[in-house]
Amino acid sequence: MRVLVLGGDGYCGWATALHWCRRGYGVGIVDSLVRRHWDRQLQIDTLTPILPIEARIRCWRTLTGKTIDLFIGDLTNYDFVKSSMQQFEPDAIVHFGEQRSAPFSMMNRERAVETQVTNVVGNLNVIFAMHEHFPNAHLVKLGTMGEYGTPNIDIEEGYITIEHNGRSDRLPYPKQPGSFYHLSKVHDSHNIQFACRVWKLRATDLNQGVVYGVSTEETDMDEALINRLDYDGIFGTALNRFCIQAAIGHPLTVYGKGGQTRSFLDIRDTVRCVELAIANPAAPGEFRVFNQFTELFSVNELAHLVKDAGEKLGLRVAIENMENPRIELEQHYYNAKNTNLLDLGLQPHKLSDSLLDSLINYAIRYQHRVDMDVIAPTVTWRNGYVAPTMVAV
Amino acid sequence: MRVLVLGGDGYCGWATALHWCRRGYGVGIVDSLVRRHWDRQLQIDTLTPILPIEARIRCWRTLTGKTIDLFIGDLTNYDFVKSSMQQFEPDAIVHFGEQRSAPFSMMNRERAVETQVTNVVGNLNVIFAMHEHFPNAHLVKLGTMGEYGTPNIDIEEGYITIEHNGRSDRLPYPKQPGSFYHLSKVHDSHNIQFACRVWKLRATDLNQGVVYGVSTEETDMDEALINRLDYDGIFGTALNRFCIQAAIGHPLTVYGKGGQTRSFLDIRDTVRCVELAIANPAAPGEFRVFNQFTELFSVNELAHLVKDAGEKLGLRVAIENMENPRIELEQHYYNAKNTNLLDLGLQPHKLSDSLLDSLINYAIRYQHRVDMDVIAPTVTWRNGYVAPTMVAV
Repeated sequence: MRVLVLGGDGYCGWATALHWCRRGYGVGIVDSLVRRHWDRQLQIDTLTPILPIEARIRCWRTLTGKTIDLFIGDLTNYDFVKSSMQQFEPDAIVHFGEQRSAPFSMMNRERAVETQVTNVVGNLNVIFAMHEHFPNAHLVKLGTMGEYGTPNIDIEEGYITIEHNGRSDRLPYPKQPGSFYHLSKVHDSHNIQFACRVWKLRATDLNQGVVYGVSTEETDMDEALINRLDYDGIFGTALNRFCIQAAIGHPLTVYGKGGQTRSFLDIRDTVRCVELAIANPAAPGEFRVFNQFTELFSVNELAHLVKDAGEKLGLRVAIENMENPRIELEQHYYNAKNTNLLDLGLQPHKLSDSLLDSLINYAIRYQHRVDMDVIAPTVTWRNGYVAPTMVAV
Repeated sequence: MRVLVLGGDGYCGWATALHWCRRGYGVGIVDSLVRRHWDRQLQIDTLTPILPIEARIRCWRTLTGKTIDLFIGDLTNYDFVKSSMQQFEPDAIVHFGEQRSAPFSMMNRERAVETQVTNVVGNLNVIFAMHEHFPNAHLVKLGTMGEYGTPNIDIEEGYITIEHNGRSDRLPYPKQPGSFYHLSKVHDSHNIQFACRVWKLRATDLNQGVVYGVSTEETDMDEALINRLDYDGIFGTALNRFCIQAAIGHPLTVYGKGGQTRSFLDIRDTVRCVELAIANPAAPGEFRVFNQFTELFSVNELAHLVKDAGEKLGLRVAIENMENPRIELEQHYYNAKNTNLLDLGLQPHKLSDSLLDSLINYAIRYQHRVDMDVIAPTVTWRNGYVAPTMVAV
């Protein structure tokens, strides 16, 4: 089984690429490295010191004797997409290769357009290359639970059966995404679903929750393989921010009322979920949707979990509410289904266990690398990006 | 009231621009003229001899004494969008300025990407310019009934109330578009809905059916003002094709079984619908959806209407079924609601009346301009564009 990982230098992509490689899959990484470029432009950095992709892959080969093919280029360049796929000959294509930050997409018009063009055109190029050259490959596409928004009814996995005026149909679940980034994922989902219908491609859309954690078995083998930990106001998540704030003695900053409820999973479960999707491919013509998360928490619940875990380590942790830079419901119903992956055998990790062994411990170990200036939000949904002093992006 | 018509050199845009200008609205036209460029590339032409935009506007001024401002440029160029809007200062922006052909978008990867980038980025630029400079203007955006596809339940106007597991919510109606073009309109709708929610923009999405007819009161004033009539395999509609086939004595070519049911309206009703939308603007923050059509017909019904009308004029009309170049259901349930515009006072024209006075008559009058080579479909949903001899696009 040969798996091509688009975005394999990123957080989820790197962990999954190593995992499959160790299991004996043929693995190739496609990446433009643009995420590292954006970090420099925005003057932010991962807490953990990640090495350049070529050094990471070299270390992996030294440790395990296994090679990973590397294709550096942009998915919006069709010749590159096609030639990478023709060289590698994938059985499965796992597509993490998109701009994945909501605040980034809300910075200004340029970043909104860049996000949608990068994601939509890259994804179109992948499905056209599959249609023209690899019609039997299985596309495993990373979507997001944020595609659904926060409806007042239960969130199903991609489809919902609607009874209406005495008739019934199973239709795509309505989408109410909350940023230009989340919108780009909705666009992708519609495009892929259409390609499956007319070209009989096979695809699995993984509507993933917020991923947390640094450790996977493979990245733990050597510090040179360490994964990202983003805590800045643009690429960081609330949970990561809280862990770093706890480690350095800063109050945890909850945006708004904190009743915003989202879905979460451990990076070790991301790796496993994608593995389950690949091992059980969609049928030709099938556009399959899995909701990929293991637990639901409100932001307040997250803050209290971090506070409790931090206090077990002897840290003193305060919690503060601040004005919400986003526009979102702060109190709402939220109940999302996630049975498809559990039915395939997923054994979830629990956040309460992972906090200590895969998050706060990293925050403490690398606290000397914390840049206090990047933690505060720099992007508001209403007014876009306000650059720190001396930065114009 | 100042109305800026994006795509004002096109079929719907030209008719509406003249209509409002005569009613005393301040009217500006924004157009890149790329549609005329595509016609040349694809070696197709409107049946009716349309003049260059500057000649059309000059004739209009001579006849009526009224001026129309003209801005030639591309909506994907933000500086152009912004400066046109700042010069014109619109109260309402009517956005027809998109690639609007399903077969064009299915020609190949390049045309699919061109369609989605042109439409999505152009539309993003419009909503960003509104957010930044004209937050109180009313966006009237042309969508398509094709966004809904052919679900097995009634099609509502943009939203549907779903009861599910004992709870209820009014959610965006699920979308199942049938080409990369239709997908681009779904992407636009999601983007605009989000902009209304977070920026309190006001927008009306007109999910329009298939428009037919050439005559409006204004375009009838002089042959120099004549509107388009597209009958080729890429930009033409089935109804236009049938009328031209009837006029020249060619059998009407029905794709597949002919049970495909779609929604239709007369160009005179398009003009009136947009006027009603502008006269009754959406509230700030409101994303309002109107299904803009007046009648439903299957392709078979259309063919028989044309046959009957043609025979009244003494034409002998045969009907033939041919292999369907598209991938679509050929027998399906179809019931779409269209009460919003009727409630605002729309008085529909009927296809059975318009056929003779606004379609077949034009087909007969301009039959010397018919190019038989462009009527057959050149694009299939499975394999894309097969160019006529000597054409590589």
